[in-house]
Amino acid sequence: MPRERLAIVGGDAAGMSAASSARRRDPDLEIVAFERGPYTSYSACGIPYYVGGLVEQAERLISRSPQEHRARGIDVRTCCEVVAIDLDGRRLTVRCAAGEETHEPFDQLVVATGAEALAPPVAGAEAIEPAQTVDAAQRLRAALERGGSSAVVIGAGYIGLEMAEALVDRGLRVTMIEQAPQVMATLDADMAAHVQDAAEGHGVRVVLGTSVEQVVLDAAGAPVAVRTACESFEADHVVIGTGSRPAVALAREAGLEVGDSGALRVDDRQRCAGADGVFAAGDCAESHHRVLDAKVNIQLGTHANKQGRIAGINATGGDDRFPGVIGTAVSKICRYEIGRTGIGEREAAQAGIVVVSATIEDRTRAGYYPGAGPIWVKLVAEPGSGRLLGGQIVGVEGAAKRIDVLATAVWAGLAVQELALLDLSYAPPFSGVYDPLLIAARATAKLL
Amino acid sequence: MPRERLAIVGGDAAGMSAASSARRRDPDLEIVAFERGPYTSYSACGIPYYVGGLVEQAERLISRSPQEHRARGIDVRTCCEVVAIDLDGRRLTVRCAAGEETHEPFDQLVVATGAEALAPPVAGAEAIEPAQTVDAAQRLRAALERGGSSAVVIGAGYIGLEMAEALVDRGLRVTMIEQAPQVMATLDADMAAHVQDAAEGHGVRVVLGTSVEQVVLDAAGAPVAVRTACESFEADHVVIGTGSRPAVALAREAGLEVGDSGALRVDDRQRCAGADGVFAAGDCAESHHRVLDAKVNIQLGTHANKQGRIAGINATGGDDRFPGVIGTAVSKICRYEIGRTGIGEREAAQAGIVVVSATIEDRTRAGYYPGAGPIWVKLVAEPGSGRLLGGQIVGVEGAAKRIDVLATAVWAGLAVQELALLDLSYAPPFSGVYDPLLIAARATAKLL
Repeated sequence: MPRERLAIVGGDAAGMSAASSARRRDPDLEIVAFERGPYTSYSACGIPYYVGGLVEQAERLISRSPQEHRARGIDVRTCCEVVAIDLDGRRLTVRCAAGEETHEPFDQLVVATGAEALAPPVAGAEAIEPAQTVDAAQRLRAALERGGSSAVVIGAGYIGLEMAEALVDRGLRVTMIEQAPQVMATLDADMAAHVQDAAEGHGVRVVLGTSVEQVVLDAAGAPVAVRTACESFEADHVVIGTGSRPAVALAREAGLEVGDSGALRVDDRQRCAGADGVFAAGDCAESHHRVLDAKVNIQLGTHANKQGRIAGINATGGDDRFPGVIGTAVSKICRYEIGRTGIGEREAAQAGIVVVSATIEDRTRAGYYPGAGPIWVKLVAEPGSGRLLGGQIVGVEGAAKRIDVLATAVWAGLAVQELALLDLSYAPPFSGVYDPLLIAARATAKLL
Repeated sequence: MPRERLAIVGGDAAGMSAASSARRRDPDLEIVAFERGPYTSYSACGIPYYVGGLVEQAERLISRSPQEHRARGIDVRTCCEVVAIDLDGRRLTVRCAAGEETHEPFDQLVVATGAEALAPPVAGAEAIEPAQTVDAAQRLRAALERGGSSAVVIGAGYIGLEMAEALVDRGLRVTMIEQAPQVMATLDADMAAHVQDAAEGHGVRVVLGTSVEQVVLDAAGAPVAVRTACESFEADHVVIGTGSRPAVALAREAGLEVGDSGALRVDDRQRCAGADGVFAAGDCAESHHRVLDAKVNIQLGTHANKQGRIAGINATGGDDRFPGVIGTAVSKICRYEIGRTGIGEREAAQAGIVVVSATIEDRTRAGYYPGAGPIWVKLVAEPGSGRLLGGQIVGVEGAAKRIDVLATAVWAGLAVQELALLDLSYAPPFSGVYDPLLIAARATAKLL
């Protein structure tokens, strides 16, 4: 009897987590993973640090190479693109580097095709390669090392901001152009203003509420400038950080369902709707948002790893559930750390949820302890009950990871009145005697 | 009609929090606070940093001076000791610097007498002043500045450890002598071993399982050595950090009840049992431990501030509740940060609670991100249900404040299985893609 075969489309976080958990559970299963690029299991989140030079070798971003996966009994095929999925025939059409198409059978399938960068729909933008993969990042860094004195970053989300910081660190004059009236749309405008301060303090020129009209290229197709309605910005280098959408074209063509979020519809076992033995995980898949009680697509390594692992468990006869997300994220932008969880005022308004909200400013350490700096905490709660619905934090070192406390409180359904008296820790190197979170909770509770 | 009068015994965190919250609620009330020492509202937690020189001026440790309190309408009497409380007669006997005893009437009373250092019961120890107050710390630092090359710290709790670090930072050869077989009895032995490593790495000689037999003094009463059964340690300076007990003698003599923890018995409104209009708060008072479901005495600024505020609210006709404690604490010892919450294996065993426990070692940041270092996380959970009962963390920068996530989870009654999939934050400067807490939760869940 032939061995059962699990095929995986996509060899980054979600796909290789699925492969690894399946391998651990079933030593006899045949597991094959197809990856379009040359690398597996890399940290896309680490790319800005490699571009900026904080991380010297691109290989440091790779947590497990194809060879390492193969040594664990996973048949990884790199530089192999899956171009078609035949669900009824239980086979994939695969195009490898050589160019010839082959057919690959499967019993169970995990779709982990990730996300694809969205370029602004303007002339010249198509010439800019998104720095989304390790090999693309290597090409960008090589270009930076060849010279140039100016750069334009299009888009002021967290990736755009991290890239802008990295480019300043390389000695470039950096302008960041954002269509929206604020940086970092995942924060409310008041909190985002602090992040803008940090970027500007680092030397980034931030241009808000402005659309790019053209990426001006030279005869060789290299960028020379970025043009808006009012101004033209010199740009020896252009980086695009205007978001990305779930890469679902392949799965959609195979007949898998796509939800309103634009990502593949899955249940809490990562099973694709109506397709037996087919799972999806990571940036290409939907998640249940526990506060909004809605399907969302949040592209983050944390979810990709967890969902991939669960897909691998369930593809091998297990029964594990992904409990959903609450929108937790952190980043470090120049001198500030930034965290968010749950929903903010803007998301609440969009979802028609009435909330109360308070913001406090405090210090990260006891006032007399060296290195104390500002921290802003904003909480959003349900009127009446006081249930915490979300939080946002901006501040110096030590600020960001506090968001996990709020994430735990949101997850557990704690009210701000209860949070205000919770037994959180105190010592002078870490906070004032009332942690900023307690102060914020009390300020919010007063509004109820 | 004469104004109502609220009297407060003790002018540090709990007492002055009570005074301040009473003042905010009732602008007409007469409020008088008696403080034995010259300072009010100071940070005892900051004393080691002042002794070590990280904080230059002792005044930096004072968050609100007597003058500032007076400007807010609180009649603070410093250098005034309350020597008797007459509950029926509603008056205090007070001895001020001048020496004369006076009587002070009260309608409501807040007892916030704090804790008193416990000296080891050996000859010479009585000559060593505990560095528990700002003025005592000033005398210690003055002595250190006068010279000396060696110091012995008796007791290896967090205060002893912080003081040992401070003394090394001043250039002294430091030996720390501890009766117990481990440092930091608030941690389980396996976790405490890392703290010992940090202290020894900083240059502290740590002598465990050893009792001090004598503090050897010179003719002038200054220390010259500390003697144990086997050895004599040169000691130009001696610091005692062998814990402290609630200062309840005054209140006990007045007839207030003392609980099994040795602290004043209060209900969750901070009301002293059987004594109308009399409240206690801070180090001298009991708290309800939510995990142990027992009364405990945990001497920490966080509780003192919260309880003081609640006492002040309830002493002025309010009705606020202190929800109890779960034993959360953090400290920074040399290169490591340390956090704990809930109960550990030892406490569980002492209380007859069966638990499962797992410990993991991880890194504080993504492996490729500069500054990553070790972090150990130990979780203790209820068998069967998996309910998290406690956690301990030791690690480099960024480790300690993670304890607040565990504190929130313990407080909310989350199970480790749920914690393992919780939406905690990730970015390379702050953790690997699975936060160490998630890894620890999964390791613990596997044991259920």
